[in-house]
Amino acid sequence: MTAFPGQDEAAGPGLAPRDDRLLPPEPTVRGIARELYRGVRDLPLVSPHGHIEAADLAANVRLPDPATLLISRDHYVTRLLHSQGVPLEALAVGPSDPHDRRATPQPREIWRRLAANWHALRGMPSRFWLEQTLETVFGIRTPLSPGTCDSIYDELDDCLGREDFLPQALFDRFGLEVMVTTDSALDLLEHHRAIAERPWPGRVLPGFRPDDVADAGRPAWRTAVERLGEIASENVGTYAGYIRALENRRQFFASHGATSTDHGHPSASAELLDEGEAERLYARLLARAGDLADAERFRAHMLMQFARMSCEDGLVMQLHPGAMRGHDRPMTARFGTDIGADIPTATEYAHSLRPLLERHGHDPRFRLIVFTLDEATYSRELAPMAGYYPALLLGPPWWFHDSPEGLRRFRAWTLESAGFFNTVGFTDDARSLPSIPARHDVARRVDCGFLAGLVAERRLTLEDAHETAIDLAYRLPKLAYRL
Amino acid sequence: MTAFPGQDEAAGPGLAPRDDRLLPPEPTVRGIARELYRGVRDLPLVSPHGHIEAADLAANVRLPDPATLLISRDHYVTRLLHSQGVPLEALAVGPSDPHDRRATPQPREIWRRLAANWHALRGMPSRFWLEQTLETVFGIRTPLSPGTCDSIYDELDDCLGREDFLPQALFDRFGLEVMVTTDSALDLLEHHRAIAERPWPGRVLPGFRPDDVADAGRPAWRTAVERLGEIASENVGTYAGYIRALENRRQFFASHGATSTDHGHPSASAELLDEGEAERLYARLLARAGDLADAERFRAHMLMQFARMSCEDGLVMQLHPGAMRGHDRPMTARFGTDIGADIPTATEYAHSLRPLLERHGHDPRFRLIVFTLDEATYSRELAPMAGYYPALLLGPPWWFHDSPEGLRRFRAWTLESAGFFNTVGFTDDARSLPSIPARHDVARRVDCGFLAGLVAERRLTLEDAHETAIDLAYRLPKLAYRL
Amino acid sequence: MTAFPGQDEAAGPGLAPRDDRLLPPEPTVRGIARELYRGVRDLPLVSPHGHIEAADLAANVRLPDPATLLISRDHYVTRLLHSQGVPLEALAVGPSDPHDRRATPQPREIWRRLAANWHALRGMPSRFWLEQTLETVFGIRTPLSPGTCDSIYDELDDCLGREDFLPQALFDRFGLEVMVTTDSALDLLEHHRAIAERPWPGRVLPGFRPDDVADAGRPAWRTAVERLGEIASENVGTYAGYIRALENRRQFFASHGATSTDHGHPSASAELLDEGEAERLYARLLARAGDLADAERFRAHMLMQFARMSCEDGLVMQLHPGAMRGHDRPMTARFGTDIGADIPTATEYAHSLRPLLERHGHDPRFRLIVFTLDEATYSRELAPMAGYYPALLLGPPWWFHDSPEGLRRFRAWTLESAGFFNTVGFTDDARSLPSIPARHDVARRVDCGFLAGLVAERRLTLEDAHETAIDLAYRLPKLAYRL
Repeated sequence: MTAFPGQDEAAGPGLAPRDDRLLPPEPTVRGIARELYRGVRDLPLVSPHGHIEAADLAANVRLPDPATLLISRDHYVTRLLHSQGVPLEALAVGPSDPHDRRATPQPREIWRRLAANWHALRGMPSRFWLEQTLETVFGIRTPLSPGTCDSIYDELDDCLGREDFLPQALFDRFGLEVMVTTDSALDLLEHHRAIAERPWPGRVLPGFRPDDVADAGRPAWRTAVERLGEIASENVGTYAGYIRALENRRQFFASHGATSTDHGHPSASAELLDEGEAERLYARLLARAGDLADAERFRAHMLMQFARMSCEDGLVMQLHPGAMRGHDRPMTARFGTDIGADIPTATEYAHSLRPLLERHGHDPRFRLIVFTLDEATYSRELAPMAGYYPALLLGPPWWFHDSPEGLRRFRAWTLESAGFFNTVGFTDDARSLPSIPARHDVARRVDCGFLAGLVAERRLTLEDAHETAIDLAYRLPKLAYRL
Repeated sequence: MTAFPGQDEAAGPGLAPRDDRLLPPEPTVRGIARELYRGVRDLPLVSPHGHIEAADLAANVRLPDPATLLISRDHYVTRLLHSQGVPLEALAVGPSDPHDRRATPQPREIWRRLAANWHALRGMPSRFWLEQTLETVFGIRTPLSPGTCDSIYDELDDCLGREDFLPQALFDRFGLEVMVTTDSALDLLEHHRAIAERPWPGRVLPGFRPDDVADAGRPAWRTAVERLGEIASENVGTYAGYIRALENRRQFFASHGATSTDHGHPSASAELLDEGEAERLYARLLARAGDLADAERFRAHMLMQFARMSCEDGLVMQLHPGAMRGHDRPMTARFGTDIGADIPTATEYAHSLRPLLERHGHDPRFRLIVFTLDEATYSRELAPMAGYYPALLLGPPWWFHDSPEGLRRFRAWTLESAGFFNTVGFTDDARSLPSIPARHDVARRVDCGFLAGLVAERRLTLEDAHETAIDLAYRLPKLAYRL
Repeated sequence: MTAFPGQDEAAGPGLAPRDDRLLPPEPTVRGIARELYRGVRDLPLVSPHGHIEAADLAANVRLPDPATLLISRDHYVTRLLHSQGVPLEALAVGPSDPHDRRATPQPREIWRRLAANWHALRGMPSRFWLEQTLETVFGIRTPLSPGTCDSIYDELDDCLGREDFLPQALFDRFGLEVMVTTDSALDLLEHHRAIAERPWPGRVLPGFRPDDVADAGRPAWRTAVERLGEIASENVGTYAGYIRALENRRQFFASHGATSTDHGHPSASAELLDEGEAERLYARLLARAGDLADAERFRAHMLMQFARMSCEDGLVMQLHPGAMRGHDRPMTARFGTDIGADIPTATEYAHSLRPLLERHGHDPRFRLIVFTLDEATYSRELAPMAGYYPALLLGPPWWFHDSPEGLRRFRAWTLESAGFFNTVGFTDDARSLPSIPARHDVARRVDCGFLAGLVAERRLTLEDAHETAIDLAYRLPKLAYRL
């Protein structure tokens, strides 16, 4: 972290040496944590869920300018700047509006906005990730400030123009063993195919995310379903054809290396309708005669269908429920859905997932990885369920809770009922390629610190802690996602 | 804990000595905690709520084999093994099915299943309790592993065949001052009577748990009510007779030493119906003409009745709400209700308990001890209510949350609004006799660690911390349960 | 704290020196915390929200006796004594009942009740505040006990009779830069005017709390609305007149220095009715023909109205939702609303505040400070919303959660999504003048301890931590409340 001038490798008074970042401050525990961390620091990165574009890795051309790459595309950062009064238009967020005559802000201006509001990110994970990324990926150790931001911008821009900062070079440098992207069910996966067919050995697999064709509550659902029918050569005018088309697309993804699907529903509701009911509901929705409750029932039914398909084709199922998308409707209408205006809501799991788990929760072919934005459910519903159903695993802290504090809460609130082995280790959910190592590093440090606490309390042997640290950082994500 | 070879009494590098298990790692705080712990370590055990069978203590014959005793009967353990893919039938869980031709697994095979999955329990309270039990009760210091499990099994089996491992000998060795069992309202308490009449001085008291006769939502309710009428010699065909029969059974329990009742309802709802309404509802339910809502209203009404009876007969009332029993209906149908498939749900207390607390919450004869599986209610509803109503006390972390982390959360989230003296100290809720000391020891260590933190922050004097540690470990449970 | 005899300035074995109260025990972290605390300890106090009476400061006569001042008027203390079985009538709680013949208890007797139950407050914030207040404000270092309580009472009583314990002298001694009171919309602010007109330079500003005239669910609403019409010289028989009257009162408050309003609603619901609907609803409620749902809709509509007014007149809007007032109806009817029987309930923010934030959340003139009694909403709804909407700021832990543990949870659960700069620093919410310094001191110590942890984990430079400590203790409340 560049923010500790004069204390680069040695500890200043009361400060940890650089390499002890995020490790527990108590010297004995820190000593154990340091030892555990040494055992996982350089393990390959496994990234089974994230938001990097395969196109960028296939094309392997220069990444965008520093501001677009590290600010405008990262809604974690833009939302916080916005909360401090920076207008969204000043951050080049969302698709540019052809009818909007205002000039798009210059990237350097956006970067200056970040520097001017840098204090507002003090202590936040976004700032920590950025500082680590600037230092470890770009070699920049000057602290960011209004006075230094221009020279840092230039330095970043220079780096990004170099060959060793092209996407594939970064991928290799980071030690990424495998990366799974998040792709629409309608994606033809040409970028993934291009990567696979070229000599570059990087393993970039598609992830099947069918929300656009499965969530009838979305305005563009009907259009997406029509396109689904075309791509899959099925008559999606009937429910049976629609289901076959989805199965067909899953096969297509699997044949391109996919091992998992992902489902981002407003709730975790799962409910199997009988065939006739499903047909009628589908027809009604297709005819635009359904209401909000119909859309919710159809999503619940489709969750059951996707679980059934997972049993059959072996694709691991991920569920990311509980976000209210586009809380701020006027701004979403103007700037799009990626402005950081999604807000978590209370989420119910015990009743909602019961039909799904009763039916498929014991099937050895099935695996369901559940994430949550409602931390009250960690110890109340999710860990107890994961500690019983063989098919159920817990995803790591997600989105708002992917922070040192959030990672610690997750461990402390799930360990007692789910243990470590009903969780999947870390998934970075990253939005920019350069930020990936920082995210994994934070998780590895925090998990090692947590394990060190168990050792210091004599609840775990040092040897078991070593093994567990490797499990969490490397083995469990590979196992859980069948990678 | 046997898992620290070569570090038995001295600390290895970075590891606490054995006697410092679970104490805070910071040396100053640990020193205070150690001193506090010395003051409570050897206090007698008070066990006002648990699931040991009085029959075992009355018969005083050899306990079952190690696997049945420590695995099959403990759903905390079987559920976790099941989550790792071990079939329930391989764990001899639940009643054996006469129509099921498959052989019951051999106890040694079950024990080997535990050893094979021992890593999956790393850091979990069940493993910690087991390790402590093996060491402190059975003197086994070899770490459990697939290579050692057979010899450990043999050693355990040998111990269990010895006189000093008979139930009464263990009871005495553990320093159990009093133990309260959990008994059906239909229990004739012959085992409790047998214990009381024999020369062995162990104090084993019945606990009145009337769910089978009070919860009209249970399939066997009607049969249980009929049996209630027979035992109590009352006409349970009428509501008035039913109430008299329950009062009669409470008297019977009280005359056998009971000081408390326990109620395990799906929700905490309490609502007093007027006499005529209660009569009609009871008649409808008895005629099997009621629905789910009727059953819930009847439970809510009966909670009010039981509170009223507690005011009259002085039995302390416990409430354990919020578990969804048998979340996995197909497996519950096959293997019974004790397979670890109960899942906590969000639980409301402020509105639900209002009628009960308004009516009886100031009555000096009344005492209500509330437990929860929804930790979000600790600081939001339960501690604020317990910090106002004289009759309301908080039970310790229950079930899924009876862990070092859970015990710490309970203290940290209830102290500010309820203090220590509106809680009841520790109740072990144990499912096997040999595990009782380990459970109390964990609670004593964690509470001493928590108190030591307050002393180190100068929020409590050392002297007050000493007194409070004794209160939590010994005095408060006796006071709260009128033992 | 008087409770550490013989360890006044030096640390006893394992105990922190007095000045390290509440700082983290680990020596390195404590060293950093101590340094940060030195930078904020003596900063002026900014008190933008509390419950001190302006009348007391205007009159500047002797404060009441020690028991009335520190016990009877503080429902945090009386509720806890009541939970231990002390009858409310023995604590002189609430308005005296002219029909109640029982003598009001003597203050000294009330004080003795506190001493007799002092153990029950061990570790609780109320005891800590009281101990700090006795020592730092009154110079009393003898620990409170049944044996010492009479002499301590006498000493307190003597102090309170001295000139340097008159309200204005205390205000000056405490370094209060500004204090905002909480006043009914019907208040004529004569005491505030009197203070402003006199030579004493103390800055005591009114706070506009219109619940009595805006919450149609209150029994006295209609009477209050009539009075509102008189004071504002508006025809409150019409909705338009009612709105004008409120705007008029806000202007009046603003002209007396008010910079903020406060709204204590059962829920956070906000919903804008159209003009005609609002008129009809108002008329129905005024005619006493409305029901509970009408009252809730009217509150939701008025929240939108108050937000709109805030945009226009610049008064900062506070929202304190989620308390179930008077949980114990019988006792509330007998002793009034200030007996400590309010209980928090689960509170929803994401849906409830959506209409308000969509409409006004980006308006630079608008500022909404939200408090909560449902800590599950910190990381789930509130911090994510505050990290997006420019107008939304988070108030500090409120009421039941204004404790060392509660303050730490607030920081640990909001930092990741809201940072420090979407919170408003500390507001004391105090109920007695002498307790104000203790409350601020606790918050300053806890925040410095939290920041020190970030420094020790190398997530924040020492310099940034220093600045942030000053922000939280002093700059942010002034900025947020426009003081």
